[in-house]
Amino acid sequence: MMPEVQSLWFAGSMGAGLTLLGMPVFLAGMRRLGWGQKIREEGPKDHQSKAGTPTMGGGLFVPVGLLASFWAYHWSADLFAVWILTIGCWLLGMTDDLTKVMRNRNLGLKARHKLLIQTGLSLAMGIYLCCTMERPGVEVPYFGFFAGIHWVLILTWLVVSGTTNAVNLTDGLDGLAGGAVFSSLVAYGAICMYGGHADLATAAIGMAGATLGFLWFNSFPARIFMGDTGSMGLGGLLAGLALITRTPFLLVIIGGVYVVEAVSVIMQVTFFKLTKGKRIFRMSPIHHHFCLGGMHEVQVTQRMWLISLVLALFGLYLHLGGKL
Amino acid sequence: MMPEVQSLWFAGSMGAGLTLLGMPVFLAGMRRLGWGQKIREEGPKDHQSKAGTPTMGGGLFVPVGLLASFWAYHWSADLFAVWILTIGCWLLGMTDDLTKVMRNRNLGLKARHKLLIQTGLSLAMGIYLCCTMERPGVEVPYFGFFAGIHWVLILTWLVVSGTTNAVNLTDGLDGLAGGAVFSSLVAYGAICMYGGHADLATAAIGMAGATLGFLWFNSFPARIFMGDTGSMGLGGLLAGLALITRTPFLLVIIGGVYVVEAVSVIMQVTFFKLTKGKRIFRMSPIHHHFCLGGMHEVQVTQRMWLISLVLALFGLYLHLGGKL
Repeated sequence: MMPEVQSLWFAGSMGAGLTLLGMPVFLAGMRRLGWGQKIREEGPKDHQSKAGTPTMGGGLFVPVGLLASFWAYHWSADLFAVWILTIGCWLLGMTDDLTKVMRNRNLGLKARHKLLIQTGLSLAMGIYLCCTMERPGVEVPYFGFFAGIHWVLILTWLVVSGTTNAVNLTDGLDGLAGGAVFSSLVAYGAICMYGGHADLATAAIGMAGATLGFLWFNSFPARIFMGDTGSMGLGGLLAGLALITRTPFLLVIIGGVYVVEAVSVIMQVTFFKLTKGKRIFRMSPIHHHFCLGGMHEVQVTQRMWLISLVLALFGLYLHLGGKL
Repeated sequence: MMPEVQSLWFAGSMGAGLTLLGMPVFLAGMRRLGWGQKIREEGPKDHQSKAGTPTMGGGLFVPVGLLASFWAYHWSADLFAVWILTIGCWLLGMTDDLTKVMRNRNLGLKARHKLLIQTGLSLAMGIYLCCTMERPGVEVPYFGFFAGIHWVLILTWLVVSGTTNAVNLTDGLDGLAGGAVFSSLVAYGAICMYGGHADLATAAIGMAGATLGFLWFNSFPARIFMGDTGSMGLGGLLAGLALITRTPFLLVIIGGVYVVEAVSVIMQVTFFKLTKGKRIFRMSPIHHHFCLGGMHEVQVTQRMWLISLVLALFGLYLHLGGKL
């Protein structure tokens, strides 16, 4: 077996193994601190029973997943850049979670503060990307090349803030975000290997393993949630992988589940404001719409997993076939 | 993309797509016939609510999965042999299900009749295997080569009857057998490709797609069960793939979940008889043991999925590393 391939197996095993071993200790610590999840009061009523479940599971599995990429056969500036972006988003999410816990309410950081920090992180990533390009610009599939540093910075900002917030919105049912991101990460592991980024593939597979280990505790009925710490960290990693492999448009397909979740919120809010009080969905993000329509929470989650898996495979197929 | 690889994508898509499209029609048909599942009276009490859910979902997705292997780039005698074995086991399962439905009870065919038919199918497969070997015999990892037609026939019988019955026993919680077999089939798809059996890989991936499509309807709360029709068909296919790729011992790892389920039944029955009435598990197969211990059915299922996925990857790793 090639050492690059071997390192993927090691990274995935380490990510899953350490998360499985460490999470019970982490859970006990969270319980002792009494840091349970605050459930937003306007959410579905039967979700109130989830109040008190420990959160911030991402505090453990995101660093474990990142550390697993130490197995990377070659280290590179690319891998370092992805680390920085992931850690930045992870810390932002953690600050958000801690604010909620400390103030004992569902709302954390102010939206404009979050956006400001995300913009800073995007800027750093965008500048790094420009430095690695012979001629900075953005290749839009079927539209051609848009030259200019500003296009790179705009796209980076869209991808980073879009992905972190979309994964964050998806994280509303037990196991939903974790299971959906797992498929995306495995697809990106394959895309990175195919594109000669074996270093980044180790990061993708290491985090996929950590997510799998986390799902052991997060699957219905969840014993711990990932929190913004987890969803922002995962979103940051996905954004970094898509940007460095130059496949940000592919991420829209592979991460189709989060895209739909985010779009459902935008549609709901826009429609509500335009019509001064009417709604498209029973509740947004869209997973609540299905739950309130009578579907069991588990069925919504598991069907979204299936969709995410199929989208990941479809995206991979498009990529290997040279289309996106 | 190589045409052999392309055919895998087509087979998987066709398997999943046709199952998704066909299952609502199939479901409506089963409902009209009034052919619901009979739940064995000695099972957990809260499982009685599952009575009346349509069964025999395997009647649709197994043939769809097999038909998807028409995408195989090359046809071969091996693929034909796997088809025959799968169809044989599928028909046996269907006869069993129909007997239950007709007689309106949980017990179907008599065990010795089932075993007789399984033995006949194994014999046919075993003779085919011997014909394809230069020197008939069984290669046991770490133990060496056991020459002789009788070893091939014995091993074939063990693998066929063991796999079909073990998958059948695993099929006791919504989505459990389907999700577990999905991982095994994907692993076998990779093993077949690696071993130069692109034809068999198409069958594995076609059926994996069909299983995925079936899970859409079978995931908790299940709208349809696969029935013996499904579990025996899937077991037959897995057995055939393991036998022709000469990896029957690897199947013990990749299908570890069914092995544990089957062993739990054997242990329970043996212990019960030896001690004249004592039990090891609260109930066997082992998934009931966990449910009765207070775990939610969904958690047992999803954790077994995770274990099955990890075992499939581990088995694949051992195989690619040349160990098994």
